[in-house]
Amino acid sequence: MTVIRPHPGNLFREKVPAAIAVGNGFGKLLGLSQVEELGELETPIVLTNTLSIFTAADALVDYMLSRPGNEDVRSINPVVAECNDGWLNDIRKRAVRKEHVWAALEQSRSGPVEEGAVGAGTGMMALGWKGGIGTASRRLPEKQGGWTVGVLVLANYGGFLTVDGVPVNRSWGLSSGLETRTPPGGSAIVVIATDAPLLPRELRRLAQRAFLGLARTGSFMQHGSGDYAIAFSTHPAVRRRAGTERTLTSVPFVLHEALNPLFLAVVEATEEAVYNAL
Amino acid sequence: MTVIRPHPGNLFREKVPAAIAVGNGFGKLLGLSQVEELGELETPIVLTNTLSIFTAADALVDYMLSRPGNEDVRSINPVVAECNDGWLNDIRKRAVRKEHVWAALEQSRSGPVEEGAVGAGTGMMALGWKGGIGTASRRLPEKQGGWTVGVLVLANYGGFLTVDGVPVNRSWGLSSGLETRTPPGGSAIVVIATDAPLLPRELRRLAQRAFLGLARTGSFMQHGSGDYAIAFSTHPAVRRRAGTERTLTSVPFVLHEALNPLFLAVVEATEEAVYNAL
Amino acid sequence: MTVIRPHPGNLFREKVPAAIAVGNGFGKLLGLSQVEELGELETPIVLTNTLSIFTAADALVDYMLSRPGNEDVRSINPVVAECNDGWLNDIRKRAVRKEHVWAALEQSRSGPVEEGAVGAGTGMMALGWKGGIGTASRRLPEKQGGWTVGVLVLANYGGFLTVDGVPVNRSWGLSSGLETRTPPGGSAIVVIATDAPLLPRELRRLAQRAFLGLARTGSFMQHGSGDYAIAFSTHPAVRRRAGTERTLTSVPFVLHEALNPLFLAVVEATEEAVYNAL
Amino acid sequence: MTVIRPHPGNLFREKVPAAIAVGNGFGKLLGLSQVEELGELETPIVLTNTLSIFTAADALVDYMLSRPGNEDVRSINPVVAECNDGWLNDIRKRAVRKEHVWAALEQSRSGPVEEGAVGAGTGMMALGWKGGIGTASRRLPEKQGGWTVGVLVLANYGGFLTVDGVPVNRSWGLSSGLETRTPPGGSAIVVIATDAPLLPRELRRLAQRAFLGLARTGSFMQHGSGDYAIAFSTHPAVRRRAGTERTLTSVPFVLHEALNPLFLAVVEATEEAVYNAL
Repeated sequence: MTVIRPHPGNLFREKVPAAIAVGNGFGKLLGLSQVEELGELETPIVLTNTLSIFTAADALVDYMLSRPGNEDVRSINPVVAECNDGWLNDIRKRAVRKEHVWAALEQSRSGPVEEGAVGAGTGMMALGWKGGIGTASRRLPEKQGGWTVGVLVLANYGGFLTVDGVPVNRSWGLSSGLETRTPPGGSAIVVIATDAPLLPRELRRLAQRAFLGLARTGSFMQHGSGDYAIAFSTHPAVRRRAGTERTLTSVPFVLHEALNPLFLAVVEATEEAVYNAL
Repeated sequence: MTVIRPHPGNLFREKVPAAIAVGNGFGKLLGLSQVEELGELETPIVLTNTLSIFTAADALVDYMLSRPGNEDVRSINPVVAECNDGWLNDIRKRAVRKEHVWAALEQSRSGPVEEGAVGAGTGMMALGWKGGIGTASRRLPEKQGGWTVGVLVLANYGGFLTVDGVPVNRSWGLSSGLETRTPPGGSAIVVIATDAPLLPRELRRLAQRAFLGLARTGSFMQHGSGDYAIAFSTHPAVRRRAGTERTLTSVPFVLHEALNPLFLAVVEATEEAVYNAL
Repeated sequence: MTVIRPHPGNLFREKVPAAIAVGNGFGKLLGLSQVEELGELETPIVLTNTLSIFTAADALVDYMLSRPGNEDVRSINPVVAECNDGWLNDIRKRAVRKEHVWAALEQSRSGPVEEGAVGAGTGMMALGWKGGIGTASRRLPEKQGGWTVGVLVLANYGGFLTVDGVPVNRSWGLSSGLETRTPPGGSAIVVIATDAPLLPRELRRLAQRAFLGLARTGSFMQHGSGDYAIAFSTHPAVRRRAGTERTLTSVPFVLHEALNPLFLAVVEATEEAVYNAL
Repeated sequence: MTVIRPHPGNLFREKVPAAIAVGNGFGKLLGLSQVEELGELETPIVLTNTLSIFTAADALVDYMLSRPGNEDVRSINPVVAECNDGWLNDIRKRAVRKEHVWAALEQSRSGPVEEGAVGAGTGMMALGWKGGIGTASRRLPEKQGGWTVGVLVLANYGGFLTVDGVPVNRSWGLSSGLETRTPPGGSAIVVIATDAPLLPRELRRLAQRAFLGLARTGSFMQHGSGDYAIAFSTHPAVRRRAGTERTLTSVPFVLHEALNPLFLAVVEATEEAVYNAL
């Protein structure tokens, strides 16, 4: 179980702009259509195994309903993603229970910001997953904004692993991966946090670059994989406070031209995070 | 709770082609990305209230794992949709439990085909929802294929109700709905079943017409509504049997020109189903 | 030929936020992917007949390249939409020539704001199309923002016309449009202009409501129709000035809750604009 | 100018299934929405430079209208894609004229199948573009279907070129591309032809893998790039003949499990085609 909190406050009351990109949709990620419609995240992100996501979502709803200030909440959009660890555990036993999720949420709430792991301003993470999780970050030069991009990858995918540009299959002297046995399928969940004050449209463009990072490590997004990228901004100025009476507020807007370094940072950090996960 | 079964067999072993259209995505519908990626449905569809969908999905996974023939299944994509009945019930109590869902699934399994309700060939439905559910169907003339389109609407949406073309606000002598108080938000889930042997692409086009039917009844798809349409085909020839070794099979293909009567049938049946739900 | 100018200045230098929704994509609308990617409009919108759109786009590019300030421009994304008037004219003769388009663009440039036609703040339009064009507008009450929504419809679609809620086929005593001959196909282009300071995401949501307005008039979006809605904001504060060195600017942000009256305005004005086109 | 013909016959009368994926939509590709809606290609594909696409599309329409059997055609959806060679030529002069396009179309029509260039069964191509075009192909082992995937890349993009896994920036001893000057923007058009009898849904999944191949060569899909992938099947059994009276036909259907080698083939062939273009 992994919990990612974009900020330490009540996320339902202070939502963060977010976007989800689907690389290959053979997965069960929860919360997709509402994030697409509204461009915002109102719960922590929980990562778990395939058959546990509904239990995790249920616990996340309980947890959010119980937070001070949420007494009148009647609709919550939990974002929960999964990888299939069916060949490691007996996934059919469905061992994850709500109390496990709740504990992870509580732990994530009180824990310190793990800046070292994913870069400044990229949210708090409570990492409890054994293996399969890697993180990396990039900081832009000051003249390019000085922003940080932190990436966490839950990597569980097949492909022909490429490290430092040397595909495994080439080192075997083969001309193409087609000559070898198809590797086992799998999935990758990429979570991208940045302190750049981005709107959902720009975050979606960042999210789509995550798959280019996966491609550098050998992924070809197999038929059976659930490949998703979730991007959000931690910048306070783009948070959305519900329940206010104003019909108009103001948000920063990063110009198109400033996005290129952020795109490159996503690709590089995703690639590196995969290596760190192995 | 409402359960819709496209056919009486093991849906995981004989999947049906399906598509989901999103009118306004402020909702929690489960299963979206996998249906978009693969164009198929592998569980019954369950409709419930907003905060119960994860419990329902969890029960649906249990149920599917327990079916004979599914002993080695490690990934299931439950399709569960919801409407918010928060103003009727104390939704925060989250009264629906897994045994309720299981019972509904068992009941739907043994029940007879309710042809009268939704038209020949449109799947079995076990209706247990009080109010808010309406059904209607259209049968095409033989020269247009003779196919049936059955529509079930879980209607819980705001708008200015129009019946037989007379909007409520006009009968009040107002020139526009803008002069009146905004109606309470809500949602609509439309399930479309047809015995036409359609592929997912064509089913998606049918699904998108459901919102035109809702519009005829006064919906303007409010910001806070979760409006989704799920379409599937019950025709045996388009079912997908997993686990076969063949790399190639053959499916019927309905020509573009034959789709128009199906589109019109969806619009008309959706409109009528809403009236029947009230 | 119809030209719609969001503002009287150089649109390439001061782009407006915009979105395009596709109801049924059997059409040739130009400019789609760039508007989807960047959420902005950088040329006037030109409406013409099906086989003339490339000529019109070519002329529009010439025109934009020739504007003062555009001397170094090497990429332009013309937005041109079309309806098929193939049964009225001999469309295969392709009578529209570049000079016709240029003249319409020049005329639109010097012409006065036709506020009466489409509402204050909704851009200038040079209407030269005989028949098929209708406009309507709605102004929100002050407490809802006081914004105006102007809609122009190029209506050329089939369906069973519904006026004031009485479908033609019902007045014929038939229970369903399925009993009658399928009406000839067609298309509808809906252009939505508003002075609300909306971002592209919100404009996309407005655009999608246009099809609900068409549905009220009897459209079921036939297989062969090219149904598109283009929405843009005329508010000066959301314009995008290229070529500045700043990486950050600030834009107004309309809260979700304020969108409902705008959605309703789009549906109502689209419906009325169709009646005005007939 | 480059012309790609999926088969030597009248494409309007025998359309091929097709799909277009958008990697980064800052480009002018024509024909997108109709291919998305119907999943079919009804003209040859023409590749040209940015400001010439409307001229090329106009000529392509003329050409198609003039083909025997198309006397009553009133709607054509030309698919034309572009790269910006603005820094090579004086693109603003817009030197391409309709006769150039017509000549390329005529030449492509009479030319032999260039099997060597893009693999058996991948359509005819008349290559007249100097530089920037590369091709490559992969043939699947017999037990995986024995199908061929041919890829043509019109490569004009920026990024940090990676050849055989060694990024240029690393060979410079830098830790990240962020330290270097941002490379000039650009675009890539990838055309994928296969003799596997795929439907549009499967072709779309193939098309999306093209961007993974670009990523392997160093692309991070810059803000200003127009990155598109067009995939079609040349298999005769999936062609669509318009104007028949039957409402039902039958098509082969490749099972999901057989797609993985095709996905890998697209990634590998795209990567190789880029190297061949340089």
